Amino acid sequence: MSIDILSEHRCFGGRQIICRHLSTSTATPMQFAIFLPPERPAPFPVLWFLSGLTCTEANFITKAGAQRVASHLGLALVVPDTSPRGDTVPRSNSMEIGEGAGFYLDASRSPWSQNFLMRTYLEKELPKVVASNFPLDLEREGIMGHSMGGHGALTISLRNPDRFRSVSAFAPICAPSHCPWGQTAFTEYLGVDQAAWEKYDACRLIESGAKVREILVDQGTDDVFLQEQLRPELLNSACSRAGIHLTLRYHEGYDHSYFFVSTFIEEHLLWHADRLC
Amino acid sequence: MSIDILSEHRCFGGRQIICRHLSTSTATPMQFAIFLPPERPAPFPVLWFLSGLTCTEANFITKAGAQRVASHLGLALVVPDTSPRGDTVPRSNSMEIGEGAGFYLDASRSPWSQNFLMRTYLEKELPKVVASNFPLDLEREGIMGHSMGGHGALTISLRNPDRFRSVSAFAPICAPSHCPWGQTAFTEYLGVDQAAWEKYDACRLIESGAKVREILVDQGTDDVFLQEQLRPELLNSACSRAGIHLTLRYHEGYDHSYFFVSTFIEEHLLWHADRLC
Repeated sequence: MSIDILSEHRCFGGRQIICRHLSTSTATPMQFAIFLPPERPAPFPVLWFLSGLTCTEANFITKAGAQRVASHLGLALVVPDTSPRGDTVPRSNSMEIGEGAGFYLDASRSPWSQNFLMRTYLEKELPKVVASNFPLDLEREGIMGHSMGGHGALTISLRNPDRFRSVSAFAPICAPSHCPWGQTAFTEYLGVDQAAWEKYDACRLIESGAKVREILVDQGTDDVFLQEQLRPELLNSACSRAGIHLTLRYHEGYDHSYFFVSTFIEEHLLWHADRLC
Repeated sequence: MSIDILSEHRCFGGRQIICRHLSTSTATPMQFAIFLPPERPAPFPVLWFLSGLTCTEANFITKAGAQRVASHLGLALVVPDTSPRGDTVPRSNSMEIGEGAGFYLDASRSPWSQNFLMRTYLEKELPKVVASNFPLDLEREGIMGHSMGGHGALTISLRNPDRFRSVSAFAPICAPSHCPWGQTAFTEYLGVDQAAWEKYDACRLIESGAKVREILVDQGTDDVFLQEQLRPELLNSACSRAGIHLTLRYHEGYDHSYFFVSTFIEEHLLWHADRLC
């Protein structure tokens, strides 16, 4: 459970920290970012942010402007990396596979199954690591993410409805079994048998009875990935049939970038704080 | 005066645009970023942000979180690059010289004098370029910057007190003639005769009679460059002797990063808006 602190910056009165630890799940060093708010009675409620393809733990903390709001609300933010990395990890030429593309699943196929166990890392290992090193209240957890990380937030919360009090996403990959990014990644990590994909597909989880009370999703109408990769209409249908209250908001002219995420991050943090604080 | 728009993102209801144009000052293509707020009667007041060593026009617009406040206040933000770039520009092995290190001066020494004319670019050329392409009110301009860009904001406003209604800086290089970064850069760009340095040194400009009414400076106490490179105490003395109202605020525990800039950017934009809107 020991960690190394790689950097720490004062930010909006709190502490923006980047840590490294040796993960037993991925058998690699892993980095994560954590923001601790100031001047509140610890332990802090925890809001997880899962990032998208190609990202590390650094993108969200430098681009989203979330610390301002988290500081005000007294929320801790935990931002994992998107995959294992390093010389011991298998290489890939596809953006959807390998470093930066963990897809928040446990790979079952060689060579990925050696390291790419991001589900176990996030569901079992990292919560214990952060809670043993920082004053966090794991009885009050929320989760959100962007794009591939939106897929991660949806599927992890659907599989663990008692763990998370709140879930939201920016432009999530809603139905990876039905989009090229997800099909490429799942085939490589999990094999061609689509039965193994179900637990990593938010729409299929919902269709099989997984449930959360409510979900907030923001989506830009000018997002180039909207129609082919993200498919929020499928999440909308699945939630509608299952009686899950989905707040799906389309925002005219916004794209897939952090300029979009930063615009709506305050509303997401307020949504989570309403349910966590 | 023609420009190419390289990218445009909706952000906080406004438009975050990156442009390229062929600069007659630097004899190179130059890029700049501009944020235009939404739903206000144009033309917009203009707030310039000058960035620090190694930065491009991208750092501030992705990391500072300024668009949220500028959108609310109805301010346009213009963010130039920090130097000319490209294959036609001379190379350097020093961080303080060459690409990313224009120091907002007109170089007089070969080979730099061919391209490194950032003073002329910012004082003469770029204002005309932006005003001829976007709905900006150049009767209402403010300027701010970070580190080397803080030096730029201070010196440009001191040389042009009638042009700018407001000036502020984050962790500026206050006295480049008295710090290693400035001495290295000025020697290379301007030569060893320190008489030529005066117009690019805020403290020396003030000592020679240049004047603005007031200046806002924020400085972190844990900034590793504070004592050797930034020297705000020299600016404080110079302003004090000259009767310039300097608001110099030290912030406990903050460093030189954008985590510091983002924490106080709202206060800077409010300061400028009070004087521009």
